[in-house]
Amino acid sequence: MERVPVLKIGDILLVSIQTDMEDQVALQLQEDLAARIVATGCHGVIIDISALDIVDSFVGRTLATIASISRVLDAETVVVGMRPAVAITLVELGLSLPGIRTALNVELGMAMLARERAADDDEQNDDAEEPAVTQP
Amino acid sequence: MERVPVLKIGDILLVSIQTDMEDQVALQLQEDLAARIVATGCHGVIIDISALDIVDSFVGRTLATIASISRVLDAETVVVGMRPAVAITLVELGLSLPGIRTALNVELGMAMLARERAADDDEQNDDAEEPAVTQP
Repeated sequence: MERVPVLKIGDILLVSIQTDMEDQVALQLQEDLAARIVATGCHGVIIDISALDIVDSFVGRTLATIASISRVLDAETVVVGMRPAVAITLVELGLSLPGIRTALNVELGMAMLARERAADDDEQNDDAEEPAVTQP
Repeated sequence: MERVPVLKIGDILLVSIQTDMEDQVALQLQEDLAARIVATGCHGVIIDISALDIVDSFVGRTLATIASISRVLDAETVVVGMRPAVAITLVELGLSLPGIRTALNVELGMAMLARERAADDDEQNDDAEEPAVTQP
């Protein structure tokens, strides 16, 4: 069976989808990705779809599921490399990929994830630094 | 026609080969990669073959050609993610991928390229700092 490889680059897992996503491939990818997030402790997932000519509702749903799984495992997902024609067709089909963040290419996706991670860390630090409210 | 996407990450171009390389796909990849090296000025190419079950002599030759093309365009190539079974089969077939450097995964490949780049830069600096030989 075909399997989409998951590549680790620093704190990010990169998936490049190149073939039509069939049910089994999509399920396997969800499992592999979840396992890798847990094994590596990565906080970001980038899915490159620049090789895809068509993104139909099944692929859209698969991407949304991956994003949701990642989120509950404390990793953010960014879909990158969407072709202009794919974006046009998606919207014409009435699909707008709700819940999925996108960036133009892998580098911009990485920058987006790094920015958000930094913002999250700041928030946590702020929380930690907040003086405890003293009870009267 | 299928096309293997070339992803730019910093100073490195990343290619993840997931399908059986047919003639046309291999030729297209060579062209795309050469064009991207020139367009981006990247000095490193990483080819991930972790999705491949089989590396035959054609794929071996394609990888060698890509490495040679990259080299004349001032970019080094590292092949990463080879499965143990693939390595065993390759050697049994009498193929040892001459002229191709390998690393276990993308991260180690990136580290290898960064090290070599640093070493090259040092050499160039040394050359530049060498005092000119004065003619008698």
